[in-house]
Amino acid sequence: MTRHFNFCAGPAAMPAPVLERARQEMLDYQGRGLSVMEMSHRSRDYMAIAEQAEHDLRDLLSIPNNYRVLFTQGGATQQFAALPYNLLGQGGTANFVHTGIWGSKAVKEARHLFGEAGVAASSEPNGHTAVPRPEEIRLSPDAAYLHYTANETIGGLEFDYLLGNTRGGMARPDGVEVPVVCDMSSSILSGPLDVSRFGILYAGAQKNIGPAGLVVVIVRDDLLELARADMPSLFSYRALAEAASMINTPATYSWYLAGLVFQWLRQDVGGLDAMQAINARKASKLYAAIDASDFYSNPIAGINRSRMNVPFMLADARLDEAFLAESEQAGLLNLKGHRSVGGMRASLYNAVPEAAVDALVDFMADFERRNG
Amino acid sequence: MTRHFNFCAGPAAMPAPVLERARQEMLDYQGRGLSVMEMSHRSRDYMAIAEQAEHDLRDLLSIPNNYRVLFTQGGATQQFAALPYNLLGQGGTANFVHTGIWGSKAVKEARHLFGEAGVAASSEPNGHTAVPRPEEIRLSPDAAYLHYTANETIGGLEFDYLLGNTRGGMARPDGVEVPVVCDMSSSILSGPLDVSRFGILYAGAQKNIGPAGLVVVIVRDDLLELARADMPSLFSYRALAEAASMINTPATYSWYLAGLVFQWLRQDVGGLDAMQAINARKASKLYAAIDASDFYSNPIAGINRSRMNVPFMLADARLDEAFLAESEQAGLLNLKGHRSVGGMRASLYNAVPEAAVDALVDFMADFERRNG
Repeated sequence: MTRHFNFCAGPAAMPAPVLERARQEMLDYQGRGLSVMEMSHRSRDYMAIAEQAEHDLRDLLSIPNNYRVLFTQGGATQQFAALPYNLLGQGGTANFVHTGIWGSKAVKEARHLFGEAGVAASSEPNGHTAVPRPEEIRLSPDAAYLHYTANETIGGLEFDYLLGNTRGGMARPDGVEVPVVCDMSSSILSGPLDVSRFGILYAGAQKNIGPAGLVVVIVRDDLLELARADMPSLFSYRALAEAASMINTPATYSWYLAGLVFQWLRQDVGGLDAMQAINARKASKLYAAIDASDFYSNPIAGINRSRMNVPFMLADARLDEAFLAESEQAGLLNLKGHRSVGGMRASLYNAVPEAAVDALVDFMADFERRNG
Repeated sequence: MTRHFNFCAGPAAMPAPVLERARQEMLDYQGRGLSVMEMSHRSRDYMAIAEQAEHDLRDLLSIPNNYRVLFTQGGATQQFAALPYNLLGQGGTANFVHTGIWGSKAVKEARHLFGEAGVAASSEPNGHTAVPRPEEIRLSPDAAYLHYTANETIGGLEFDYLLGNTRGGMARPDGVEVPVVCDMSSSILSGPLDVSRFGILYAGAQKNIGPAGLVVVIVRDDLLELARADMPSLFSYRALAEAASMINTPATYSWYLAGLVFQWLRQDVGGLDAMQAINARKASKLYAAIDASDFYSNPIAGINRSRMNVPFMLADARLDEAFLAESEQAGLLNLKGHRSVGGMRASLYNAVPEAAVDALVDFMADFERRNG
């Protein structure tokens, strides 16, 4: 068996100890004589797995008691539809901070379903190389909520601050406070977080949580009452909360794997403070290597450089192909940049070990030596 | 490692060779140095896995070229919403044949979203012990399509005939033909099927396909043009078809496991004719044991007895608890009936081996001997 270093932006690397445990339990979960994926979601054993996962996630993020944790499906993209359905029941429009491709997809879906959506701020003028500053964000007079993307996976742009106030809200021009909603798909669990600064935060699992398909939504319970009546039943946060995320059969095996990731974070890594320190070292090393050379570059303002997704360009794009072929040969997988950006991208999610970054930095120096 | 016999109604037993292969490939897929769940869905390796799965499913069911195969999420329950959105774009109402709990859920969601839905036939008068006969099914004058549930997982009631004509349609009173749509969640792949008798058929994976979360939709391509504009983007069959089911990140690992199940059906079982013969033997043995004794009973009309889900009652319900405790002790898992029905239920999906039925029948006889 070989394990290479995997810099994929998502579906992304899983912690090896999690895969090892899943492997061991694949045909027989703890002597029960069946796989977790063969269990009824209503069985005692599975309910214990599901509840433990929520418990561990609550512990990791210190989630306050007035927030519900939902495990649902369809990726963050499905939440782009579910969110306006759940929050526009009393009218108003969704407002967005537009910082790149994922933010724009969220705007587009709200407009598709409900005609209009406000753009409260955009980093388009600077080519999405720096996020708007707090004073630049202006909600529309009829804003029902503000949505932003904490980390743009494709652009490699990350907010250096939380947009919500201590009540998880932001004030409209008329002083009315509306909830702040955040897509944290590619940065959740990368470090400690003050959940009370959000009305809702959510994340597709396939970066820092587990396998693709699962989505985690963390929602303050007073926001369960703002839904439109006309939405698909499975989209309803209230219905999901009331059914403990089991309106119908959930993605049981993915939920179990997410639980193993949460256990790994608690027990092997030692919690989110420790995880944050490791992630900071990983990102610093890679950005330092990029900045130390004219051969490589990254366009993002220092303060907004993503710790999770590091796009970088070779000064001579004709070398891209050789870089990719040779890095793959060296066991450094999935370094190709997103087709909309080009160049390279190294995603440094939690499960990517520091040794992977060391190996990448060494390879980059060697490649530059041979081609620079 | 122990493997017990698992009669769970879903999430259900998986073929042991599939789990074994998944176990072997968990940390390193065929020397690539990563798990399938760590692969980009757009990578060459993953695309090959995804395409092979579709290819094998097409081969197993002889799916005609003018049908598209979609791999999506949210279970059959999400399809209860997606279907009317996709088929009511030119007006009209959804029509349903109501044969039990799953059929009624589909009606309820269509009514929730679009106000009305027609019930073209119902087995409620006979307590859902026999399906309506073809001549009893009457579409409403404005029917846009007819939906039925091929096999009611909870009631243990299965259609003995296909509702669609050779064009996958059914005529309204005015002679206009509308497409027939079928929920085959709990019977797909249990035997050969003439797909052309359906406009659309779909199935949640967690019975005969793979892990919970994945849904397979097989849709005739002319039906991709009938959608309403106002639906969540991810619900659109046309958008899914155009994106080869990758509008956003699909449930990659579940899709891979489904592919392993399709390979198992083709190579280990020898195709759906062979599977059908095994399933027929399994069901016959269990129903014969039930019928041979006054100690056990099943209320369903012979012709509509489900081959996949066999509910049965003990004449003395006070023995239920002992039956369940002792059967579990004997390694016969998940025999408890659905809470709405009571008694016992043995689900005999493809992955439940004939030996499991033999062991169950032996246990039942022994239990009767000791308690009868």
